[in-house]
Amino acid sequence: MKVSIIGTTGYGGGELLRILAYHPVFEIQSIHSSRGEKFISEEYPHLNSLIEKKLEKIDIEKISTEADLVFLATPSSVSSKLVGEFAKSQIKIVDLSGDLRLKNSEDYEKWYRHEPAEISILEQAVYGLSEWNKPDIIDGKIIANPGCYPTATLLGLAPVVMKDCIDPNSIIIDAKSGVSGAGRTPSKIAHFAEISENINIYKVNEHQHIPEIEQQLLKWNEKIRPITFSTHLIPIGRGIMTTIYGQLTAELTTKRLIELYQEMYDKKTFVRIRPEGQYPAVKEVRGSNYCDIGINVDERTGRVTIISVIDNLMKGAAGQAVQNANLMFGLDETLGLEFIPLYP
Amino acid sequence: MKVSIIGTTGYGGGELLRILAYHPVFEIQSIHSSRGEKFISEEYPHLNSLIEKKLEKIDIEKISTEADLVFLATPSSVSSKLVGEFAKSQIKIVDLSGDLRLKNSEDYEKWYRHEPAEISILEQAVYGLSEWNKPDIIDGKIIANPGCYPTATLLGLAPVVMKDCIDPNSIIIDAKSGVSGAGRTPSKIAHFAEISENINIYKVNEHQHIPEIEQQLLKWNEKIRPITFSTHLIPIGRGIMTTIYGQLTAELTTKRLIELYQEMYDKKTFVRIRPEGQYPAVKEVRGSNYCDIGINVDERTGRVTIISVIDNLMKGAAGQAVQNANLMFGLDETLGLEFIPLYP
Amino acid sequence: MKVSIIGTTGYGGGELLRILAYHPVFEIQSIHSSRGEKFISEEYPHLNSLIEKKLEKIDIEKISTEADLVFLATPSSVSSKLVGEFAKSQIKIVDLSGDLRLKNSEDYEKWYRHEPAEISILEQAVYGLSEWNKPDIIDGKIIANPGCYPTATLLGLAPVVMKDCIDPNSIIIDAKSGVSGAGRTPSKIAHFAEISENINIYKVNEHQHIPEIEQQLLKWNEKIRPITFSTHLIPIGRGIMTTIYGQLTAELTTKRLIELYQEMYDKKTFVRIRPEGQYPAVKEVRGSNYCDIGINVDERTGRVTIISVIDNLMKGAAGQAVQNANLMFGLDETLGLEFIPLYP
Amino acid sequence: MKVSIIGTTGYGGGELLRILAYHPVFEIQSIHSSRGEKFISEEYPHLNSLIEKKLEKIDIEKISTEADLVFLATPSSVSSKLVGEFAKSQIKIVDLSGDLRLKNSEDYEKWYRHEPAEISILEQAVYGLSEWNKPDIIDGKIIANPGCYPTATLLGLAPVVMKDCIDPNSIIIDAKSGVSGAGRTPSKIAHFAEISENINIYKVNEHQHIPEIEQQLLKWNEKIRPITFSTHLIPIGRGIMTTIYGQLTAELTTKRLIELYQEMYDKKTFVRIRPEGQYPAVKEVRGSNYCDIGINVDERTGRVTIISVIDNLMKGAAGQAVQNANLMFGLDETLGLEFIPLYP
Repeated sequence: MKVSIIGTTGYGGGELLRILAYHPVFEIQSIHSSRGEKFISEEYPHLNSLIEKKLEKIDIEKISTEADLVFLATPSSVSSKLVGEFAKSQIKIVDLSGDLRLKNSEDYEKWYRHEPAEISILEQAVYGLSEWNKPDIIDGKIIANPGCYPTATLLGLAPVVMKDCIDPNSIIIDAKSGVSGAGRTPSKIAHFAEISENINIYKVNEHQHIPEIEQQLLKWNEKIRPITFSTHLIPIGRGIMTTIYGQLTAELTTKRLIELYQEMYDKKTFVRIRPEGQYPAVKEVRGSNYCDIGINVDERTGRVTIISVIDNLMKGAAGQAVQNANLMFGLDETLGLEFIPLYP
Repeated sequence: MKVSIIGTTGYGGGELLRILAYHPVFEIQSIHSSRGEKFISEEYPHLNSLIEKKLEKIDIEKISTEADLVFLATPSSVSSKLVGEFAKSQIKIVDLSGDLRLKNSEDYEKWYRHEPAEISILEQAVYGLSEWNKPDIIDGKIIANPGCYPTATLLGLAPVVMKDCIDPNSIIIDAKSGVSGAGRTPSKIAHFAEISENINIYKVNEHQHIPEIEQQLLKWNEKIRPITFSTHLIPIGRGIMTTIYGQLTAELTTKRLIELYQEMYDKKTFVRIRPEGQYPAVKEVRGSNYCDIGINVDERTGRVTIISVIDNLMKGAAGQAVQNANLMFGLDETLGLEFIPLYP
Repeated sequence: MKVSIIGTTGYGGGELLRILAYHPVFEIQSIHSSRGEKFISEEYPHLNSLIEKKLEKIDIEKISTEADLVFLATPSSVSSKLVGEFAKSQIKIVDLSGDLRLKNSEDYEKWYRHEPAEISILEQAVYGLSEWNKPDIIDGKIIANPGCYPTATLLGLAPVVMKDCIDPNSIIIDAKSGVSGAGRTPSKIAHFAEISENINIYKVNEHQHIPEIEQQLLKWNEKIRPITFSTHLIPIGRGIMTTIYGQLTAELTTKRLIELYQEMYDKKTFVRIRPEGQYPAVKEVRGSNYCDIGINVDERTGRVTIISVIDNLMKGAAGQAVQNANLMFGLDETLGLEFIPLYP
Repeated sequence: MKVSIIGTTGYGGGELLRILAYHPVFEIQSIHSSRGEKFISEEYPHLNSLIEKKLEKIDIEKISTEADLVFLATPSSVSSKLVGEFAKSQIKIVDLSGDLRLKNSEDYEKWYRHEPAEISILEQAVYGLSEWNKPDIIDGKIIANPGCYPTATLLGLAPVVMKDCIDPNSIIIDAKSGVSGAGRTPSKIAHFAEISENINIYKVNEHQHIPEIEQQLLKWNEKIRPITFSTHLIPIGRGIMTTIYGQLTAELTTKRLIELYQEMYDKKTFVRIRPEGQYPAVKEVRGSNYCDIGINVDERTGRVTIISVIDNLMKGAAGQAVQNANLMFGLDETLGLEFIPLYP
């Protein structure tokens, strides 16, 4: 199977290269970037002697003809236009941007402040939360790969929301992200001397991942009310932790909830539930496709605390993209993704 | 005025030295440590040529006779014993440990798992949240200096709790702390290779600062119900951010709430309220005694998000301790504390 | 005395504000920036309630009339033009850029690749290495404030070079710098995700501070031959360490060399020599104007290792600039600079 | 092939697990630690669901019988005793400690201050610098796996030392290491709040890797004189950079030297030579077994600067250990080591 990557020089694109270089089925057919035609090792010297391909201009016809699948690691508002073009051919598409995730165009316009994708494209796009939308992904031609925050949040919330164990008007998510999430283009927020030894909160109650999370929660449980979702920037390179709070509707112990999570994530390789009294740390999934989850019920308040961690470039982007590509081609979803976390 | 410091070689003690070295009224009479008699610059080389005092053994009688005030920068369970001894003399005491903060001995035993201080001592001890307990501090002889997390949390919550603007059963505090909060003794949690590039949650629903926060909130508003309070370790040296969530009981705008905070913190030099749309970052108070607060009301949910940041070694420990000492001696509370944040 | 600052929104300018806000003699008359007219706290929120001045456009005539001294915290090639204008009036000038440091215009063109300043200006400019050029600085009207690397290097080398203890053809300086040295403008080299968990070497044998160091070494000892000088970027905000290697020409012990350094730096408050067996760390001078120096002679090789550390924004920029300003106005050089290092 | 690991809970042991979990030929037979019998995931939660083995006590007879090879990831002075025991059986041994590296027992005693290994063991031990001692390693039964600093240094110096291009009395190595090199046991030097935002120099002219480097350099070129070698601690988790300086003995250009390095490292997969004008950064080899080398000749001084970077836990420890194990069993040396650097 031949795959092409567009937007190769960003962090998501770079991570796709790291995964695909040794993937047993997918072969990198071509890599593309708007940064000009040069060897990828000029942009990413760590790939010297490993990937000696040259970056090419984006040629939709050529890619559509030569590749079986294209990964779009392009920014929002760029992706929607490219998908429109690629959709005319038979090529399968995994889009890592936010452009195809919201089914409601008005929501997209409100939260992204860009022009939305065509409705016909939005209708075709399958939301690629691999663990929970597997049948649709398998049959899909266009995948809207989930955002990094939504992935951690939704995997953490799925069991209690599906099983109606949580007051639908009580969900608060406090998210903390590493700085690679801000992308590779230099900016003030990601400038070393500004963010080192610092913690920032940003886009307070305005983050574009809010409607994405709510859309999926509502699919699982129509009673869900608007959530509170906050994003903090932490001086680490990779990793997201979401600390999720909610009021339980039944008297559940920590032990019982953990059992529920273990049942519901049984056979889902990339989600690991921690035993009682243990909580995941961000570095324990670094460089891997795992989402690790810990749970605690506070008897004093009747509230549950759910801690969910991922590597934002892996399970939060390129890792889940390849997991979805595996599914689309009928492969084992873990293929090429057997990375052990890089610890310490 | 002469002051002595016990527990000088910890981070709290070191910060007291940084402040007191140039304090216009207090003079360092003696410094004490259980680490043996040696020059302080052997423990803290950055003090070479600045503070050439020798560490001494703890001699309660000598200190009581020679000094007007003693700072106890000693661990919990050590402080309570020392205070018992010092209380017999006329010396004023500021205790930076948690030993004297909880009025209820049973709470102390439950959350600290140590033997509590004598009741007579607990009765005398004034909770030293400088901005809100000023009259008691001025008259006090023994100050229980607040914990780092409670300081950030309580300053952030005071207006909405006092003015009854918040559902008393809805308070959730997500706290993030730098690693200096774990003290100076090497430990696994504070080991560089473990915590760098990492985020940890610890003591989930078990942190000993929970009853301290609730005790003060209940003094302000007896309707307050148990809070949810989580603590995360972030790979920075100094700094705490608390992100506080609560359901508003009235329809308040961000603008109106900011006005309320500005009114209630008027003339309180060390609390700075950010204008609408701006939020404080941890490094913006580094090395200073400020607590900076930002506020946002989400119309979708009716919830308020309050962001409060401090330097845990300053406003969260040594800075507030000196602020309280200033008050106890009738001085301007800002004396010797005019540090501009070290940015970047 | 009234002072103005041009280039206030960069890190050097910000540090000048931190120092001057409480300086007992200098008063900030006006602050200037090309970023537009707004309150400085919009650029630097940590200065909220502390410095409420508004940034102004650069008006050379107004500044010359109203201020006694102007600090230029402007980039190379901008400074030279401004100095040319200010030099026509009576105002004293401290230029923090590299524009006035090299006496030889051709050297400037070769290493900086900009047009050099006018020769008459270069002739007037005094190289402001405070500890060693004090008489000239006192009499100076225009100060070329030294670079960060040259300051650490020259203070480390002065005794052995002046006293001819070192083979003039053997000097190798391995310098390590924090990322604030790259300035406040976002750039790839200072992008968090690129430099965190990383070490870079840059401008190998091409750094513009090489001729600055050699020029001063030659003034001290005309036998000095070209040096090797390397610069590494380290993921910390502030701080420079230079590790300096050289072949000793006489049989000197570590002890004897330390005595020499102590003699030669006697009464020079801001240089602290460590005792035998101790070496300075970068954080031990953070936020202060100190340069700490440690020395070791290796009997196996006959080489000396000199370790010199500074805070690049203080002794390496704004701190030394104020020290020079103090000297120019006949004040004690330490005035307003009594900052204890912020440790940890 | 069955392998056992002793000292599994340290960082070297943990990295062996990461490599061996998916090694196509080696199978982990047993893992051992002095920390007691428990699941490895209790010590390393990131291995949950990946490696479900239990740590065992060290039973030399059992290991010797059941495994074909044992990795000793044990501290110096522990390894020498274990090797003495294992050497009585047929099992192959790779020792990651410093105990077997120095052929001269007196040197060991002087630099390590422990009792040396038996002479018969030292005579059998092959110094496992994979790229240059391949024939001996292939035939070896006991491998002394090189130290992290020596690996980076020796790979950087080999061509110029072998080809006699460098003044044998001019070699200076300035090494910078991440904090994981200090091991997993909490200590002051590796305490987060002490080393974050800091740079330290340690063991000045006293590091035990000095004789190891000199021993190998002398095997390559008997004219080599004592080197200067300095070690700095940098606030990153993984990675070593050595900046190597030396006086060239012939007029060589950067271009010519790079060609020499390319020729001499041709077919040596894990050493990558950068093209002219490019220099490796530590993060560009993170998590991989590569050693990347950059070279610059300064015409002004006639000195060469060689920059060599490795991941200290991979090529500097566990990676090279597996590379050597591959060679000992006649396998391709890259087997199981095809890790692409984790960037960013």
